[in-house]
Amino acid sequence: VQHEVEHHTSLEATLLEIQALLERHESEREEAAQEQPGEEARALAEIARRHEDELESRLNRLHPADTAFVLESLPAEQRDAAWPLIHRDRRGAILLELAESVQEPLIQLLGDDELIELSRQLPSTDFADLVENLPEERAAAVLGRLGAGERQQVQTALSFPEDSVGALMETDVVTVWDDLTLEQAIQSLRGRGALPEPLTSILVVDRSNVLKGLLPVARLLFGDPSRKVVEVMDADPVHFSTTDKADEAAQAFDRYDLIAAPVVDPQRRLVGWVNVDQVVDRLSDDTFKQSLGQVGLEEDADLFAPVWRSGQRRWVWVGLNLLTAFIASRVIGVFEGSIEKLAALAALMPIVASIGGNTGNQTVALVIRGLTLSQLNESNRLYLLRRELAVSALNGVVWGLLMGAITLLLYGSLPLAAVMGLAMLLNMLVAATAGVVCPLVLERLGRDPVMGSSILLTGITDSMGFLIFLGLASAILL
Amino acid sequence: VQHEVEHHTSLEATLLEIQALLERHESEREEAAQEQPGEEARALAEIARRHEDELESRLNRLHPADTAFVLESLPAEQRDAAWPLIHRDRRGAILLELAESVQEPLIQLLGDDELIELSRQLPSTDFADLVENLPEERAAAVLGRLGAGERQQVQTALSFPEDSVGALMETDVVTVWDDLTLEQAIQSLRGRGALPEPLTSILVVDRSNVLKGLLPVARLLFGDPSRKVVEVMDADPVHFSTTDKADEAAQAFDRYDLIAAPVVDPQRRLVGWVNVDQVVDRLSDDTFKQSLGQVGLEEDADLFAPVWRSGQRRWVWVGLNLLTAFIASRVIGVFEGSIEKLAALAALMPIVASIGGNTGNQTVALVIRGLTLSQLNESNRLYLLRRELAVSALNGVVWGLLMGAITLLLYGSLPLAAVMGLAMLLNMLVAATAGVVCPLVLERLGRDPVMGSSILLTGITDSMGFLIFLGLASAILL
Repeated sequence: VQHEVEHHTSLEATLLEIQALLERHESEREEAAQEQPGEEARALAEIARRHEDELESRLNRLHPADTAFVLESLPAEQRDAAWPLIHRDRRGAILLELAESVQEPLIQLLGDDELIELSRQLPSTDFADLVENLPEERAAAVLGRLGAGERQQVQTALSFPEDSVGALMETDVVTVWDDLTLEQAIQSLRGRGALPEPLTSILVVDRSNVLKGLLPVARLLFGDPSRKVVEVMDADPVHFSTTDKADEAAQAFDRYDLIAAPVVDPQRRLVGWVNVDQVVDRLSDDTFKQSLGQVGLEEDADLFAPVWRSGQRRWVWVGLNLLTAFIASRVIGVFEGSIEKLAALAALMPIVASIGGNTGNQTVALVIRGLTLSQLNESNRLYLLRRELAVSALNGVVWGLLMGAITLLLYGSLPLAAVMGLAMLLNMLVAATAGVVCPLVLERLGRDPVMGSSILLTGITDSMGFLIFLGLASAILL
Repeated sequence: VQHEVEHHTSLEATLLEIQALLERHESEREEAAQEQPGEEARALAEIARRHEDELESRLNRLHPADTAFVLESLPAEQRDAAWPLIHRDRRGAILLELAESVQEPLIQLLGDDELIELSRQLPSTDFADLVENLPEERAAAVLGRLGAGERQQVQTALSFPEDSVGALMETDVVTVWDDLTLEQAIQSLRGRGALPEPLTSILVVDRSNVLKGLLPVARLLFGDPSRKVVEVMDADPVHFSTTDKADEAAQAFDRYDLIAAPVVDPQRRLVGWVNVDQVVDRLSDDTFKQSLGQVGLEEDADLFAPVWRSGQRRWVWVGLNLLTAFIASRVIGVFEGSIEKLAALAALMPIVASIGGNTGNQTVALVIRGLTLSQLNESNRLYLLRRELAVSALNGVVWGLLMGAITLLLYGSLPLAAVMGLAMLLNMLVAATAGVVCPLVLERLGRDPVMGSSILLTGITDSMGFLIFLGLASAILL
C-alpha cells in the first residue's frame, strides 16, 4: 500500500482540514435529521454522505502513524465519529501507533471477530500490546479463540513486565550460523523468503541458537564472499536479557549509537531482538514523562480525554496537595496570635514559601535527571547535597538581603527586615535539602521518584517556610 | 580499537570504582606533597604514580561514550583531575559525547595545536560542533589555521542554526545513480573504498545529484542483480531541507520508523543525510528539557557544575519568582486590615493559592506537550480551554465542598466555610485558564513556552488566589 507520507508542516494543515470536515459533517447530519422527510431531506442526506466519503478517503489515504496523530489531536467526540470511517484492515496498524490512553477506549469498541482478525494481521508481540489494554475477561475470551501456537506466543509476550526489554523486543529474528561463509549466508537468507524491512543487521548464532555476534547487512554485501561469518561479524555485540529494564536498553542505544541489539536468555540463547525504532518510540514517549509525572499526571495523559475521566485521574494528586496545604495552613494557625498583632507577617510569609517551592523544584528536576541517567550514586549524592546547599546559601544571601531591604523600605522596621532576610535564606536551605532528599527517599522506597515529587516538595517548603518565618517573627518581634 | 562496551549496571559499578580511585589518588598526592623530601616521600610518590597509571588505564579502556558518562557523573574538581589522564587521540570522540555544559570548559582547556589535530581526526560536522563552543576569537584563530577546503566545510556546518536539520545532518553521503543495475551499483560502491558504518541505506541520485530515492542495503543485497536501482528503491522517501526544524525531523523519524533520511536543497539536490543515531541523541536530550525548562533551568544543566556558575544560572528565574511573589504579597497587603480582624484568613489563604498552583501546573504540562507534538492548533485550543475549565469546575466543586466542610469544623463559621469553598472553585478556574493561556501566549510571542512557565503560572495563581479569597472574605464577612 502506498501511503501519503506527509511532512510535519503539511500534516498540521491536514489535521485542520480533517477537523473542519468533521465539524461540517456533524452539523450536516444534524440538519438532515431535523428536516421533514422529503426531497429537501434526501438532498441534505446526499450532501452529508458525499462529505463523509471525502472524510473517509482522507483518513484512509494517510500513513497509519499520521492517522494516529490526527486521532490523538481530535476531541473525544470527533475521535469517536472518525473511528468507524477507518477501514478495518488499517485499524490494527493505527491502534499500535496510538498513545495508550487514546488506544484503550478504541480497542474496547472492537468486536471479538475483529480482534481475532487482527491477530492474523499483526505480529504476535504487537497483538499482545493490544490485548494488554483489554479488560481481563475479554482478553481471556479472545486468547481462548486463538490457535494454540499463536496463543502461546501472545501469552509469552504478555508475561513480560511493561518496562522490561522482553516487552520491547520483537521475536521475528533473522539469523545465520557463524560457521557459514558469507556466500552461504547470503544463500541461506535468500532461501528464507520474505525478509522483514528495514533489515539492518543479521544475528549470528551457532547450531544451538547461542548468540555469537551481529553482522551488519552492509558487511555481508561488501565483504569477501569466501570469508566466514565468524571472521566478519562483530563478535561481542551489546545485548540484553528479557528482564533488563527497557529504559536502560534505550540508554545503551543512545550511548553506543546502536541500530539493533539481540536479546538472549540466561544460557545466552537468542530469543529476540530490539530495533532502534522501538527505542525511538520509547524515548519520544519519555520526553514528557518527567514533566507530567512531577505534577502527578500519567505520561500518556490524553489532551482530549472526556472531562470525567480526566478529573478522576487528577483526584489523588489534588487530594495529596490539599493534605500538604492543610498542614501548612495549620502551621500558620499556630501563629494566628502573632498575625493578629502584626498583619504584615501575613503579607510577607507567602514570599518565603514561594521562593522555597520554586528553588526546591529546580533541585528536584536536576536530581531526577541524575537518577534517571544513573549519574547519581551513593558516593556522590552527599557531594550533590553540599553543592545544592552552597548554591542555595549563595542565592539565599543575595536575595535575602534584597528582600530584607525592600521590607525595610515598605514597613520601616529593621527587625522585621532581618527576620524576612533570614527566613528566606533558611527556607532556601530547607528547599535544597528537601529537593535532594525527596526524590532519593521515594526511589529508596521503590517508588518512581518522579510521581508527585513536586507536590510533596511544595508541601515541605510551604510548611517550613511559614514555620521559620512566623517562628522567628514571634520570637524576635513580639 | 576494541573498547570495553559495558552494560548499564556494570557501568554504575565502574563509575563507583573510578570515583574511589580518584579520591584515593587525590589524598595520596596531598600526603606525598606534605612529606619531607627523602625515602618516605619517594615511596609515597611511587604509590601515587602507580595508582594514577591504574586510573589512566581504566579511563582509556572504556568506550568513549562511557568515559563521557563517567566524566559527566564526576564533581567538577574530580573531572578536572581526570581529564589530563585521557589520551589525546581519544579526546575528540569523548568531547562529542559530553553534554554541552560539561564539554564547554573542557574544550577551552585544549591548546590550538590539539584542536587542529582534532580537525584532522573528526568529520567536519563533528569538529564544527566543538568549534561552536569556543569563544569567538579562539574559534576564528583555529579556523584561520585550517586548510581552505576544510575551513569552508566547517564554516558551512557552523552556519546552520543549532535547532535546524542542517546542524543535525552529516555530509559524508553514500550515493549511487538511479540508472545503474543493482550489480553495477554494488560495483560502484565497492570501488568507493571505505564505507561508513553503520551503513543501512544508500541514497539514490541522478547524474545531476538530484535526490531520486532511498535504497535499503538489504534490498541491494537480496534484489535481482539485473534490475535497475530505480525499480527497487523507495521512490519518495521522507526527506528534509537544511532549514527544517530538528525537532520536527525527530518527530518524523519517530512517526515513520526511519533509520536514515536524505537532506536536500531547494532544487532537490542532495546535500547530506540524517542518521537515526543523531535523532536518538536528540530525543534523549529532550527527555529532560521540559521538566528542567519549566523551573527555568537549561536542558543540559550540569549536576556537578561549580557553585558560582550554578547560582548565577538560576538568578534570573529566582528574580522573576521574587517579583511575582512580591506582587502576591502586595495583594495581601491591601487586605491587612481584614487579616487583623480575622487571623484565620491568613491561615486559610495559602490553601487556595497552593491548589491553584498545582492544578494549573498540571494543565501547563499537558498544554506544552500538545504544543510540542503540534496536536494543539487554532481550531482545538478553545475546545481544550473549555475542557480544562470543566475538569477544574468538577474538581473545584468536589474539593471546595470538602475544604468548606473542614473549615466549618475548624472555625465553626458557615460564611467563612462558604468563602473558602467558593474561592477554591474560582481559583481552580483561574488556574485552568492561566495554564492554557500562559504557554500559548509565550509561544505566540515567539518564546519557548517551556522556559519558566511554571514560575509565571504560580505567580498568577498565587496573586489571584489571595485576591479572590481575601476579597470575598472582606466583602461577605467583615
